[in-house]
Amino acid sequence: MSSPAFVFPVRIYYEDTDAGGVVYHANFLRFMERARTEWLRELGYELTALEQEFGFLFAVRSVDIDYLSPAHLNDLLKIEVSIARQGKASLDIDHKVHRDETLVCRARIKLAGIAADSFRPMALPFTLD
Amino acid sequence: MSSPAFVFPVRIYYEDTDAGGVVYHANFLRFMERARTEWLRELGYELTALEQEFGFLFAVRSVDIDYLSPAHLNDLLKIEVSIARQGKASLDIDHKVHRDETLVCRARIKLAGIAADSFRPMALPFTLD
Amino acid sequence: MSSPAFVFPVRIYYEDTDAGGVVYHANFLRFMERARTEWLRELGYELTALEQEFGFLFAVRSVDIDYLSPAHLNDLLKIEVSIARQGKASLDIDHKVHRDETLVCRARIKLAGIAADSFRPMALPFTLD
Amino acid sequence: MSSPAFVFPVRIYYEDTDAGGVVYHANFLRFMERARTEWLRELGYELTALEQEFGFLFAVRSVDIDYLSPAHLNDLLKIEVSIARQGKASLDIDHKVHRDETLVCRARIKLAGIAADSFRPMALPFTLD
Repeated sequence: MSSPAFVFPVRIYYEDTDAGGVVYHANFLRFMERARTEWLRELGYELTALEQEFGFLFAVRSVDIDYLSPAHLNDLLKIEVSIARQGKASLDIDHKVHRDETLVCRARIKLAGIAADSFRPMALPFTLD
Repeated sequence: MSSPAFVFPVRIYYEDTDAGGVVYHANFLRFMERARTEWLRELGYELTALEQEFGFLFAVRSVDIDYLSPAHLNDLLKIEVSIARQGKASLDIDHKVHRDETLVCRARIKLAGIAADSFRPMALPFTLD
Repeated sequence: MSSPAFVFPVRIYYEDTDAGGVVYHANFLRFMERARTEWLRELGYELTALEQEFGFLFAVRSVDIDYLSPAHLNDLLKIEVSIARQGKASLDIDHKVHRDETLVCRARIKLAGIAADSFRPMALPFTLD
Repeated sequence: MSSPAFVFPVRIYYEDTDAGGVVYHANFLRFMERARTEWLRELGYELTALEQEFGFLFAVRSVDIDYLSPAHLNDLLKIEVSIARQGKASLDIDHKVHRDETLVCRARIKLAGIAADSFRPMALPFTLD
């Protein structure tokens, strides 16, 4: 009964791959951040505006990621974004990465709202639902 | 009288920036490669197909890049691709990067055609004009 | 009663940071891989030799990482490597990252031994203890 | 008759390579910046101190780089740094990258001194000779 996830496409270029012939494991975190940023943009929240208007930043608190199938040069991946849990000053996001029907990897990423000047916890200046 | 350049958009995320608050200089080379890859794809040439069908790869031989204006988080850059010179086993590309009307950087990148197995020079298996 | 962990130093350069003024979260995974590689080298196992002699590769299966304190430009981080669990075809590694006495982040990374040609599970060609 | 160049070692890890099995071309710019930073540190100038004490930053104005021989996983490269020309608010650096006796690539990188707050030209707060 969950709402359909936001999906952002990412094409794989040489910069994303390594000498094993696959996408380097750390780079999936970059793709997931691109997808989160575009998801927030579609909801009306630009990261730069949140910082300028509210002095608000997201910080990554933890990442739990499972790599299930390798991705390769020229693959067109689909990065899903869905809310796992929203707290007052935190936001847990679930990501799934698919190439066609294959689940490439999945992750839960916990974000904290922080004040840009002090890096102390700060309530999210918006609600998502 | 040159044909209009191919233009590929690149959004700037945290991954692309550095502690100076601007896009890290080496990352423009990544954006330019994305643009070249999409330009070739539009012309009908996928890098993976060129390697599988012809055993052909592009190697970067040189880069001359001038940085004219900084780019920042959340900028939407436009990466231009145009042919400066096509040789039998080489291809020189000119790139310009704009944010709106501002020229952010420009580069000439010389590519060599090489055989995927030997890394020796190899004629381009197609012509561009 | 555990043996002292292997520690590898990593200096933070502009390439590692982002516009938030801190080390970009995905980059700690790169530092941890550098440390694991140097730890294996010190034990006598070079990744390139393992592949050439045994057709053996490590693949990252999962990462659980907690970010506790930000790191900044010019910091000199110490990346610890210790074995959490060694299986027949798997190796779980614990990493801790310190700047002086401050714990910056910690992670458990699960590696699988795979055959370089088939990407199927393969027993580690060595034991660590 | 030039003074001997400063040399900084860089080990190649998976993060540095691409699916072509070689070091990704943009990454040499990262290695060169590491080497410049360590060269300045040895001369007594830390980038963070230059910014905090003088409000001074270096910005990369241009890069001319020639790629002569590929580098691979596990290579130990030596990155040379030498001064090509020092101006009042500019510094041109020559880099050579070797693996053993093989010249892998060479570059001239032009840096500008800028004020951290305005990004306007600023005289170097030190002389090198």
